[in-house]
Amino acid sequence: MNTPIQTQLIDGKAFAYQMTEQVKKNVAQLQKDTGITPGLAVILVGNDPASEVYVRNKTKQTHKVGMRSFMHMLPETTTQQELFNLVQRLNQDPDVHGILVQLPLPKHLDPDPIIQSILPSKDVDGLTAYNAGKLTLGHMDGFIPCTPLGCLMLLQQELPKLRGLNALIIGASNLMGKPMAQLLLNAGCTVTIAHIDTRNTEELAQQADILIVATGCKELVKGSWIKNGATVIDVGINRVITSDKKVKLIGDVAFDEAVGKAGKITPVPGGVGPVTIACLLYNTIQAAQKHVKE
Amino acid sequence: MNTPIQTQLIDGKAFAYQMTEQVKKNVAQLQKDTGITPGLAVILVGNDPASEVYVRNKTKQTHKVGMRSFMHMLPETTTQQELFNLVQRLNQDPDVHGILVQLPLPKHLDPDPIIQSILPSKDVDGLTAYNAGKLTLGHMDGFIPCTPLGCLMLLQQELPKLRGLNALIIGASNLMGKPMAQLLLNAGCTVTIAHIDTRNTEELAQQADILIVATGCKELVKGSWIKNGATVIDVGINRVITSDKKVKLIGDVAFDEAVGKAGKITPVPGGVGPVTIACLLYNTIQAAQKHVKE
Repeated sequence: MNTPIQTQLIDGKAFAYQMTEQVKKNVAQLQKDTGITPGLAVILVGNDPASEVYVRNKTKQTHKVGMRSFMHMLPETTTQQELFNLVQRLNQDPDVHGILVQLPLPKHLDPDPIIQSILPSKDVDGLTAYNAGKLTLGHMDGFIPCTPLGCLMLLQQELPKLRGLNALIIGASNLMGKPMAQLLLNAGCTVTIAHIDTRNTEELAQQADILIVATGCKELVKGSWIKNGATVIDVGINRVITSDKKVKLIGDVAFDEAVGKAGKITPVPGGVGPVTIACLLYNTIQAAQKHVKE
Repeated sequence: MNTPIQTQLIDGKAFAYQMTEQVKKNVAQLQKDTGITPGLAVILVGNDPASEVYVRNKTKQTHKVGMRSFMHMLPETTTQQELFNLVQRLNQDPDVHGILVQLPLPKHLDPDPIIQSILPSKDVDGLTAYNAGKLTLGHMDGFIPCTPLGCLMLLQQELPKLRGLNALIIGASNLMGKPMAQLLLNAGCTVTIAHIDTRNTEELAQQADILIVATGCKELVKGSWIKNGATVIDVGINRVITSDKKVKLIGDVAFDEAVGKAGKITPVPGGVGPVTIACLLYNTIQAAQKHVKE
């Protein structure tokens, strides 16, 4: 009776490649039309190894599409005022169209006033109150955080119609869960947001046509949690050491158990990750294009 | 087995009275300390009878707590530019601490650019992108739309602990459903937002510890939809004509059916309505107090 479902992998890498190629064309066109090269400034404070990998990867991709990249690597000892001053300088710099502060910041720094001091028109991470509010109000002309934007694009590609589907988002962060809820609401889904205080996450998951997991808890979601045929988007990236002492990336979903239950699923790695970076490039070219229009 | 539940009425009128008395004291204190009288400007365009009732009621309450009220009643023929110019003047007027544009506007006017042109520091309805974003990001120092703020206050009074409860909000508007979801998320609830495209609203309602209904559909929610002992907040205000040709207000919940099922419920009228106006006064005194601090 319970024939296992033929689970289809969602190829984030291929999707990101296509997006990136399109951004590359748009960059070339903008340069041809206006002489302007889009520029992305990335600020990294301290020496967190994972953040360094992310930042290096972002820089590499930025160059690949023909954009300028401005890397600001600040020492662990940077003060709040110094960081604030740097954001102010980048706000005023006409060569910088997007500003990204790599999170988390060292503990002695308060991220929020820093993030909120970024000009909304350069806030390619979509984290200022103005851009968050635009999204909440359903105005799609602000900047949308890259990870939920990427998840939405993948869902739009994979599902012919989102309207009316039941979506569960596990994780309620400002960077992912909350903007994801707004995007899916705007798309007509019935949206539930579960989090650390939720009492019946498993039961809620079993009712979800779309299951999006962004918790940072490795393999939290078991196969038995997944509704037959559901579309599963795994946003988690967790590093584990295998028995032969290699580093392996695993998601927030027990992938092997999900296969045969989910209709479609994003793998880790190769799912949401590459699309997130493609969305950052997408937001940056948008910022440069808007800058030209103003 | 199914002993009917002793349903308790949530007395919004009494709650609003207490809130209003507190605002009155704060207004007197502010005048004593600074000589400043908080002022609320209300803009009404056209002759919608329901809007006229609301606006009159707001003005009356504003005077009751010792605030100034500036009523701007514009003709149906007002242009977008004229309305925009008025908002600009009120933005600059030091006697005006709060600005409210009564919705809906006549059809030839586009409400959104008007709302977005209100200074965030005078946006006592919490509808600008900046204030909506503040709420989304969990920063509680912006202005929160009055109706969901009132619902939250009622819930906080009625339920000892919101954290971990399952809440269903039916209706996903910018004025009510969306900010309500943010408030309940911030309070630790597991939140589901249902709307016109939702396929299984009844089933979702049956799982909800907290059920908030803001649809404008009279008596949409039947008694059978309500989980035993749930707390029900009815935001609907629908006018019906009774058999003896009197106007009667009814809610979005079939009240008579809900009694015996819900643990607590707000009546219509006398539930959410008065608290909404009290929250408007609360936001306005906050605006005046912040203005003094700046």
